[in-house]
Amino acid sequence: AKGVCVCSCVSQVLISKREFFMPGLVDTHIHASQYSYAGTALDMPLLQWLNAYTFPVESCFKDLEFARKVYTQIVRRTLRNGTTTACYFATIHTEASLLLGQIANDFGQRALVGKVCMDRNDCVKHYKETLQDSQDETCRFIKELLEKKYPLVKPVVTPRFAPSCTGALLEQLGEIAKNNNLHIQSHISETHEEVKLVKELFPESESYTDVYRKHNLLTDKTVMAHGCHLSDEELALFRETGASLSHCPNSNFSLCSGVLNVRNVLKHKVKLGLGTDVAGGYSASMLDAVRRALDASKVLTIQDPKYKTLSFEEVFRIATLGGSQALSLDDQTGNFEVGKDFDALRINVAAEGGPIDLIQDEEPKVGDDRNIVEVFVAGRRVVPITE
Amino acid sequence: AKGVCVCSCVSQVLISKREFFMPGLVDTHIHASQYSYAGTALDMPLLQWLNAYTFPVESCFKDLEFARKVYTQIVRRTLRNGTTTACYFATIHTEASLLLGQIANDFGQRALVGKVCMDRNDCVKHYKETLQDSQDETCRFIKELLEKKYPLVKPVVTPRFAPSCTGALLEQLGEIAKNNNLHIQSHISETHEEVKLVKELFPESESYTDVYRKHNLLTDKTVMAHGCHLSDEELALFRETGASLSHCPNSNFSLCSGVLNVRNVLKHKVKLGLGTDVAGGYSASMLDAVRRALDASKVLTIQDPKYKTLSFEEVFRIATLGGSQALSLDDQTGNFEVGKDFDALRINVAAEGGPIDLIQDEEPKVGDDRNIVEVFVAGRRVVPITE
Ligand SMILES: [Zn+2]
Ligand SMILES: [Zn+2]
Repeated sequence: AKGVCVCSCVSQVLISKREFFMPGLVDTHIHASQYSYAGTALDMPLLQWLNAYTFPVESCFKDLEFARKVYTQIVRRTLRNGTTTACYFATIHTEASLLLGQIANDFGQRALVGKVCMDRNDCVKHYKETLQDSQDETCRFIKELLEKKYPLVKPVVTPRFAPSCTGALLEQLGEIAKNNNLHIQSHISETHEEVKLVKELFPESESYTDVYRKHNLLTDKTVMAHGCHLSDEELALFRETGASLSHCPNSNFSLCSGVLNVRNVLKHKVKLGLGTDVAGGYSASMLDAVRRALDASKVLTIQDPKYKTLSFEEVFRIATLGGSQALSLDDQTGNFEVGKDFDALRINVAAEGGPIDLIQDEEPKVGDDRNIVEVFVAGRRVVPITE
Repeated sequence: AKGVCVCSCVSQVLISKREFFMPGLVDTHIHASQYSYAGTALDMPLLQWLNAYTFPVESCFKDLEFARKVYTQIVRRTLRNGTTTACYFATIHTEASLLLGQIANDFGQRALVGKVCMDRNDCVKHYKETLQDSQDETCRFIKELLEKKYPLVKPVVTPRFAPSCTGALLEQLGEIAKNNNLHIQSHISETHEEVKLVKELFPESESYTDVYRKHNLLTDKTVMAHGCHLSDEELALFRETGASLSHCPNSNFSLCSGVLNVRNVLKHKVKLGLGTDVAGGYSASMLDAVRRALDASKVLTIQDPKYKTLSFEEVFRIATLGGSQALSLDDQTGNFEVGKDFDALRINVAAEGGPIDLIQDEEPKVGDDRNIVEVFVAGRRVVPITE
């Protein structure tokens, strides 16, 4: 059971020849609300897809029973997939977002939960908020979630992305985050089309990154999804502020958005985690994200043979410790260092009915959720799930 | 249960809302012998990897008990993955290759089985044959396999690839195939390095494709794996001769070989199937091959937004009907046309314990072997496997 999962000395504990513990996987970017249509119709570009699928479905989450069904499924599914920590986008609805926090707490998942903010949406008119509502509801969401005192679930300030927000809203969200020392998440530089749109909407800013920085949304508790088309100057801004990136390769392939140059991100010493970006990505599995990150890296090597492909070990590190750093939770999780919580997966390479045929005692082949036989978060066994 | 698997009117039969039949998957290129190390160490280029892993392990197949173990696992595994037809590379060993044919027959898989031929190997000296042995053993393999009269298992003439064969061997294999009207399989134009090597080894030939054509190895019963770097002139030669290509995207990513331009292949009206290329590809699942083919196509769209991404439907067609055409078996399998055998998968989108959470009655998400609840080959139920 050596090979695939070896990240560092604090990242793997052998139990037997075919079993070992590895640190829990950290999904730094996932839309809980989009799980109901994951894997459908990924044959259109980002901005078109948002209008055709995302906005109409997200508007259904004002119905709390629908929200309960979808959010229960996604929390259960990601736990079974070994995601011990998830950084969730919910929707604009405060009650449903609070419910997602409750469900994550009930099932024992470590989570950041964001009520989405957006006061600009020209395409689906009924799915947006007023500036005032967005501010008020964000404050209420944060206050009520914190009052629950869930040990592992925290709120995260969540402007959807610059094109969905007025400068005034971004400004207020920056304020709220600062005053309450909160996490922040959003999207950045996913597609060329979007970068161009941001330039038109925010002509006074030097870059997409500068839009967020100007509004105090780039802090050492910020995680931004994608960043495929960031310039070196923008990466330097990330480094300076301590903000991090979430690499979502399945989504980047599926929506034909671009290919993140991970080596360049690491060279700029920007904190980096991996994300599934359900439902831009069709898979809610971080093991899938690991494989797609390897593919993305290999695509860059195919384009330029001098590009040094990421190793398995590097990508597993990004999926665990890297993710915990990207979410500023590395004091609690990410590896088996003394003093951190026990967030762990028990892997059985030869699990009965699993996808791996162990023939010799060679290194393990690439498995799936069937090889994840137990999941622990903060020492509590959360998988198998007991009803 | 509509959406993902709809290829044409003869490609899907609805059973209920969540169940349907689809045509069996056709794996047009898989190395049965390499399954014992699938998913290990894909961090080196093709020619290096052949020497480090492939040749040393393949030489173990002179041990028939080892061969029985590996070949039983791969046939069982591919059937469970829905591969009703497989075009196998075995090794240079006649007895073990005959055993692969027997195992495929016993489990009820439709298969082409090739004893590998190679009389040139400068790197692993003990893993090659003499010209005479290769010819004699190929004839013995074909004769003995045909004498078994397995209804669904046929021999295929299998030069490993041009760099492993002398011109004299290629010549003789072309003769053998012609005299017995046999299938032919090999590799072509997988990596730039290999194309260069072929140019050096066969200076008299106009192109890699021309090497095979000159030796009568390009016929309407030929399938060549990869073809990532073929010129338009070479594709025209494929078209003229009726030879086909096997697209192996997982392998092409994993070994950083290149990205096949499928649109261009289709434009040249070259027959095209899909292959897993285990263990260049780490997955023995054709559903994985389908997803990787979509990714490969999307990579080309990312590089050039004018490139029209393949649709799900197109890729499923290539994985079924396209594969049957590539193997010249489309009179027997590939879809549900009247007169063909019943090679089919019963898919349950909502299979218990499966990877899909059906939330609304929306289109199904992307599943795995757990959603393939029954497999039929020529009308016989072969999965679930009964011991
Ligand atoms: Zn996203
Ligand atoms: Zn091959």
